[in-house]
Amino acid sequence: MKICQVEGTLVATARIGSLQNRRLLVVKERGSNGKQVAVDPVGCKPGDWVIAVGSSAARDAAGSKDYPSDLTIVGIIDYWDDASGQAGANAGANPAPKTSSKAGVKTDANPSRRT
Amino acid sequence: MKICQVEGTLVATARIGSLQNRRLLVVKERGSNGKQVAVDPVGCKPGDWVIAVGSSAARDAAGSKDYPSDLTIVGIIDYWDDASGQAGANAGANPAPKTSSKAGVKTDANPSRRT
Amino acid sequence: MKICQVEGTLVATARIGSLQNRRLLVVKERGSNGKQVAVDPVGCKPGDWVIAVGSSAARDAAGSKDYPSDLTIVGIIDYWDDASGQAGANAGANPAPKTSSKAGVKTDANPSRRT
Amino acid sequence: MKICQVEGTLVATARIGSLQNRRLLVVKERGSNGKQVAVDPVGCKPGDWVIAVGSSAARDAAGSKDYPSDLTIVGIIDYWDDASGQAGANAGANPAPKTSSKAGVKTDANPSRRT
Amino acid sequence: MKICQVEGTLVATARIGSLQNRRLLVVKERGSNGKQVAVDPVGCKPGDWVIAVGSSAARDAAGSKDYPSDLTIVGIIDYWDDASGQAGANAGANPAPKTSSKAGVKTDANPSRRT
Repeated sequence: MKICQVEGTLVATARIGSLQNRRLLVVKERGSNGKQVAVDPVGCKPGDWVIAVGSSAARDAAGSKDYPSDLTIVGIIDYWDDASGQAGANAGANPAPKTSSKAGVKTDANPSRRT
Repeated sequence: MKICQVEGTLVATARIGSLQNRRLLVVKERGSNGKQVAVDPVGCKPGDWVIAVGSSAARDAAGSKDYPSDLTIVGIIDYWDDASGQAGANAGANPAPKTSSKAGVKTDANPSRRT
Repeated sequence: MKICQVEGTLVATARIGSLQNRRLLVVKERGSNGKQVAVDPVGCKPGDWVIAVGSSAARDAAGSKDYPSDLTIVGIIDYWDDASGQAGANAGANPAPKTSSKAGVKTDANPSRRT
Repeated sequence: MKICQVEGTLVATARIGSLQNRRLLVVKERGSNGKQVAVDPVGCKPGDWVIAVGSSAARDAAGSKDYPSDLTIVGIIDYWDDASGQAGANAGANPAPKTSSKAGVKTDANPSRRT
Repeated sequence: MKICQVEGTLVATARIGSLQNRRLLVVKERGSNGKQVAVDPVGCKPGDWVIAVGSSAARDAAGSKDYPSDLTIVGIIDYWDDASGQAGANAGANPAPKTSSKAGVKTDANPSRRT
């Protein structure tokens, strides 16, 4: 699954019927400038770091095998433990996730490099 | 789902039967120079910014589980809210979507960076 | 779907049985140096610009849900209309399709930039 | 399948129900700085080099056709034989796997270039 | 399908049960430094240039719809005809396949550029 940050809500009035009125978010993958659109069944807000699943699993994750999604948010990241010691080397290119204000388990600014 | 801009209509006379006479569009992904071909069940015109779904979901989105598409347009983008404040930094490389003249909800030139 | 140019026929004597004796072509994606192998149910010749479908749709396009293809040619490109006006900027890196001699609908050398 | 190194455990309290309470690991693909999230049914620890499967196979590998994973760890790498003689050329960019302390079959530091 | 060269055999003792005792090979895609792991139902040896199929087709190619593979070798490349005349331009970056010693149809060193 990809590690993405939510940028904002996307509005698309003209759409195929099977997309229904699900919430679509613009997300940016960690360490990349490219933006994608993800379905949000979790309830995220801009700035949240999330886990997004692709491939055919994105459809089930959106609630139905027939839902036409190839990227669906499946969770909001609280933090992760990083034992490699190499994360700091590419901190500029790949900023670590900020603590999700939703989950709020951690309050330090850069949970992947804490300790 | 990918954020793409419609470039134009593709004509391919010699094709497999299951492609039928569906409309095929050349699209360019945002922030990339690469072009791809997408099936258009929505009704887009050149210049429109659209959401295109890939993977196996592209088939259902095209109307049938048997349709041989791996990229199908599922909606025309009106605009999106961008709360990150970082969008301006890579505006050169990743131009933000122009307002779709079809949906016409927004009229400012660069909806993703409006404040 | 990807826009590819046919390079030539690939010969692979030792193969799994389910590949059968289908024609395999080496193709190069537009704007890339990487080569891939595609199944050809259309009947292309070297130099043709084609549409190739990937993902699970490649299997149905090859004629059977059980055929082990992840890239199948589904049509030969005649030309496309390009209304963006930006195509010329990256002409060096991404040469536009030459007119397919098979379909022969257009005879100008660079159909994507015709006006 | 991809060759990845386990970075650490990811905590995501707010998640969709179908993710269940499976263990999610942050992994880094060999020769890349990008991080992804993988489901771990094997039982890895940080630093392990693993094989991770993507596409629809990630779902079955996670234990169920309905599990919403697009990247699942399927094995821990002990070592591999490298007969090409070219591995040394890109050792800087693509560090070879360290011996997995779990499997413990090999004890040399760089099994892919042993002779 | 991808064009890959076999690097060597991978040993992974700790693995999920559904991987069974199938042979796993480390392969390198042509024109890339990245290595991946592929299932080998054909019987390749290091140095062989092979066709590897991804996506959901990798599972059927491995012998069962339930096998958790996303990259399976489906054939050993003998040679291919290259009619584009451009292959020589990127020979440094993308070395052409060496003749497979298994299939042995061709004996010239660089079959893709033979004339």
